[in-house]
Amino acid sequence: MPETLSAIAEYLSSQGLACECAGDVSTRIRAVATLGDAGPDEISFLSNPKYEKALGTTRAGAVVVSKTQAVPEGRTVLRVADPYAAIMMLIIRIHGYRKHPGKGVHAEAKVDASAQIGENANIMHGATVAAGVSIGRNVVLYPGVYVAAGSRLGDDCVLYPNVVVYDGCMLGNRVTIHANSVIGEDGLGYAPLGRKWHKIPQVGIVEIGDDVEIGASCTIDRATLGRTSIGAGTKFSNLIAIGHGSRIGRDCMFVAQVGIAGSVTVGEHVTMAGKVGVAGHLTIGDDVQIAALSGVMNDIPPNTRAFGQPALPMNEAKRVYAVITRLPEMRDKLKRLEREMEKLQADIAALNSPTDRK
Amino acid sequence: MPETLSAIAEYLSSQGLACECAGDVSTRIRAVATLGDAGPDEISFLSNPKYEKALGTTRAGAVVVSKTQAVPEGRTVLRVADPYAAIMMLIIRIHGYRKHPGKGVHAEAKVDASAQIGENANIMHGATVAAGVSIGRNVVLYPGVYVAAGSRLGDDCVLYPNVVVYDGCMLGNRVTIHANSVIGEDGLGYAPLGRKWHKIPQVGIVEIGDDVEIGASCTIDRATLGRTSIGAGTKFSNLIAIGHGSRIGRDCMFVAQVGIAGSVTVGEHVTMAGKVGVAGHLTIGDDVQIAALSGVMNDIPPNTRAFGQPALPMNEAKRVYAVITRLPEMRDKLKRLEREMEKLQADIAALNSPTDRK
Amino acid sequence: MPETLSAIAEYLSSQGLACECAGDVSTRIRAVATLGDAGPDEISFLSNPKYEKALGTTRAGAVVVSKTQAVPEGRTVLRVADPYAAIMMLIIRIHGYRKHPGKGVHAEAKVDASAQIGENANIMHGATVAAGVSIGRNVVLYPGVYVAAGSRLGDDCVLYPNVVVYDGCMLGNRVTIHANSVIGEDGLGYAPLGRKWHKIPQVGIVEIGDDVEIGASCTIDRATLGRTSIGAGTKFSNLIAIGHGSRIGRDCMFVAQVGIAGSVTVGEHVTMAGKVGVAGHLTIGDDVQIAALSGVMNDIPPNTRAFGQPALPMNEAKRVYAVITRLPEMRDKLKRLEREMEKLQADIAALNSPTDRK
Repeated sequence: MPETLSAIAEYLSSQGLACECAGDVSTRIRAVATLGDAGPDEISFLSNPKYEKALGTTRAGAVVVSKTQAVPEGRTVLRVADPYAAIMMLIIRIHGYRKHPGKGVHAEAKVDASAQIGENANIMHGATVAAGVSIGRNVVLYPGVYVAAGSRLGDDCVLYPNVVVYDGCMLGNRVTIHANSVIGEDGLGYAPLGRKWHKIPQVGIVEIGDDVEIGASCTIDRATLGRTSIGAGTKFSNLIAIGHGSRIGRDCMFVAQVGIAGSVTVGEHVTMAGKVGVAGHLTIGDDVQIAALSGVMNDIPPNTRAFGQPALPMNEAKRVYAVITRLPEMRDKLKRLEREMEKLQADIAALNSPTDRK
Repeated sequence: MPETLSAIAEYLSSQGLACECAGDVSTRIRAVATLGDAGPDEISFLSNPKYEKALGTTRAGAVVVSKTQAVPEGRTVLRVADPYAAIMMLIIRIHGYRKHPGKGVHAEAKVDASAQIGENANIMHGATVAAGVSIGRNVVLYPGVYVAAGSRLGDDCVLYPNVVVYDGCMLGNRVTIHANSVIGEDGLGYAPLGRKWHKIPQVGIVEIGDDVEIGASCTIDRATLGRTSIGAGTKFSNLIAIGHGSRIGRDCMFVAQVGIAGSVTVGEHVTMAGKVGVAGHLTIGDDVQIAALSGVMNDIPPNTRAFGQPALPMNEAKRVYAVITRLPEMRDKLKRLEREMEKLQADIAALNSPTDRK
Repeated sequence: MPETLSAIAEYLSSQGLACECAGDVSTRIRAVATLGDAGPDEISFLSNPKYEKALGTTRAGAVVVSKTQAVPEGRTVLRVADPYAAIMMLIIRIHGYRKHPGKGVHAEAKVDASAQIGENANIMHGATVAAGVSIGRNVVLYPGVYVAAGSRLGDDCVLYPNVVVYDGCMLGNRVTIHANSVIGEDGLGYAPLGRKWHKIPQVGIVEIGDDVEIGASCTIDRATLGRTSIGAGTKFSNLIAIGHGSRIGRDCMFVAQVGIAGSVTVGEHVTMAGKVGVAGHLTIGDDVQIAALSGVMNDIPPNTRAFGQPALPMNEAKRVYAVITRLPEMRDKLKRLEREMEKLQADIAALNSPTDRK
């Protein structure tokens, strides 16, 4: 049921995002789309100035822009203080979150008789819930999910297909785990006996806080003893590895392919961009931001932006890594200075030599 | 049914690869093998000069070599312009591609009544096809595959065990996806509200072109809006992450553990070696080649070879990164120059001082 | 059944780890825990001096420490030569290894009639064993495991949920593979035909030796021809990619996200820390140790420690990479030297100029 732009404007205002319309407020909006894809019954937005040109070419019925954005003549726009926040609210309003198929415990789900299943849980065919597991209310388990013995999931968790939770792990409420991720596999715990590696039973667990979302194909080691933990509100992208015994704080955000070694402590609200690696036993303070591809080899104090391999505080890193591209030039300069130095040394020698001075 | 070397030579010639035999053309060939493994009824090849020595030791019944390759006395060879192309044709002829087990829709496959299934599709036990999905002709879905609501697969696709395709994604014809890869999971789309991350529904899709092959355990984010796309003919190795809204061109080749952030545009026929990372919102031109472990932080123009962290054009990168190993030497030189400079300055001062010049 | 500290001390001594108790030897021990988590009925240990302070605060009933460790007054300790080895033995004794659920071939496992299943194998519901597969004694296959045609697993293997073994692969005895790993997918084998990539059938296999443990979500390519091999006793963490035709030696240890390109030869007892990458066709000698995030671009001789991108022998690498953080300082020095040089050159010119010297 498409609604008019004026209805949309009213809705945003009612949510505290005051907005002004310019253009045809009777335009009916069916969906949200990118500037490139949007058609006449879709609304789009401009947030990153990099895409400003598309304002001239988009076929969108309306565009959400900032209060001060210059727009081409005749373009229907909705002006708000924060276009990104506005479009997020419109995506939620118009499209909403994913609906999951299924309902109740499917006859072909494998649920152990000793498991406790919360009200309204949706356990699909081909999902396995092992002995002693506790599953909260409204939990969704897709096909191929395996929840091993003694694990506990809070309410409103969603585990996409083929997620595996090893034995004894604890998930809070509203935890979402995307397809093919693994929670609680054994970490790399071996004692060297001569040249052989002798396996140490990994008897710890993984504990995941409320409102955590884990991307696809992540792997989170259980602790050798105690727990590996992921703080409430933290969000992971895909293919992330967390080593045994590490503790990730609340409200962190990790981009794809981040790797954290074992026994690392990460504070709250830390962001790590793609492919960041952190060595074992380090401490990363609250509100740290680490740029993509950085390799962290030392503790990082709170409120620091860091970058590079090895990762350095941002200001230092920028100075250091900027010089790297000047290295050939520096080497050439150095060679020239050496030659000039020899020349000067000869000149001085000549000046000091009586035979030349007479 | 082994065939003689002369029959093989005839076949290659018929395919446009003219070849000459030297040695025993009646040798019967049963299989293709490496120089190290091959026995008297197997044919091998030499393409990489690194392995030339093995020509002297291999037990192969025959070896495909280049027109000009020196070979030990008595060695039976097949000389062709391109040994690698020839051996590829022989592997296809003698061994062929993988045959898939099963046939038809298995009684224990879970296919929603509203799904459309093409002629001759092979949907194995334990595969799930959700509501409104369309599956082309001859498609093979292995056990544990989950194709979510509304997705569409073209003809002749093969999805190996435990591949997950999220809702609404579109795969072309002849798309192959290896085990445990995930297509269309939600990207890392959150709006910051204070210190909390508020999830933005990811309502876009993933679109994969014809003849794409995706390795094992890759993760390709759906777009927030619109589509993440993989161009026709592109080939991925394993553990590759593609961020939401990125567009990968046709005929690209990405090696294992490549990571592309969101909203990146990659041109056609781009190769990225292992572990390359590309930051968000960048544009990589056609025919770019990026060396292993590079970190791309800026746009790259077409037809460029790039390397390093940060990635630089190859010539510049080679100069820059070659200097890195000379750094200790440069520092020593610099220290020496400083000392010599002080010495010279003292000498000059002495020359200029009247007390010394009298 | 908790046992007393004196009983534990006796056990360790009987295993060749002589130990002395100090404090209350009648303390009953129920479990092993970290210094931070342990309560009065748990035993903990101090091995890494970084955690020494916790000796003062732990609530542990007893702590295993080294012979010479200073401990706070009244603390009950067990002194041994190697606390880490001792605690490993206690974890095994008190907690033991994971027990697997299930028994026998489940009625809802899919086992092909032509497969050979060893005595006492435990094949759970939803696992698939394809045609011609051979499964050893006591093997455990969790739900979602797929073992493709013709593969062979030795005795006592454990494949956790959703592990996929492609056709024709060979696993030795006591091989453990964690959830969602893939063994034997096709490698990136394509021949370029113009701008197109033409697939080469990957007809080789993967061979895994005895006592190998593979982490979660690893991907090990089958060889194009011949075999990709993992030597006996080798241990992998998670998200590791091994390229086609590579040969990994015995007793290696690879940390998470390591990536090995194709046709690499790795010797015995090699350790690679997190995110190490190795380029194709290289040879890494026995007993090599490669530090985290290193990028190996050249062969490495045996018994070498290496580090960096590109990876260099440790001593050289330390010198080189230590200089990197000094680069801005070096550049400033260079600029100063240049200015001083110009000044000196002018001074010398002045000294040599007749007009100035008269």
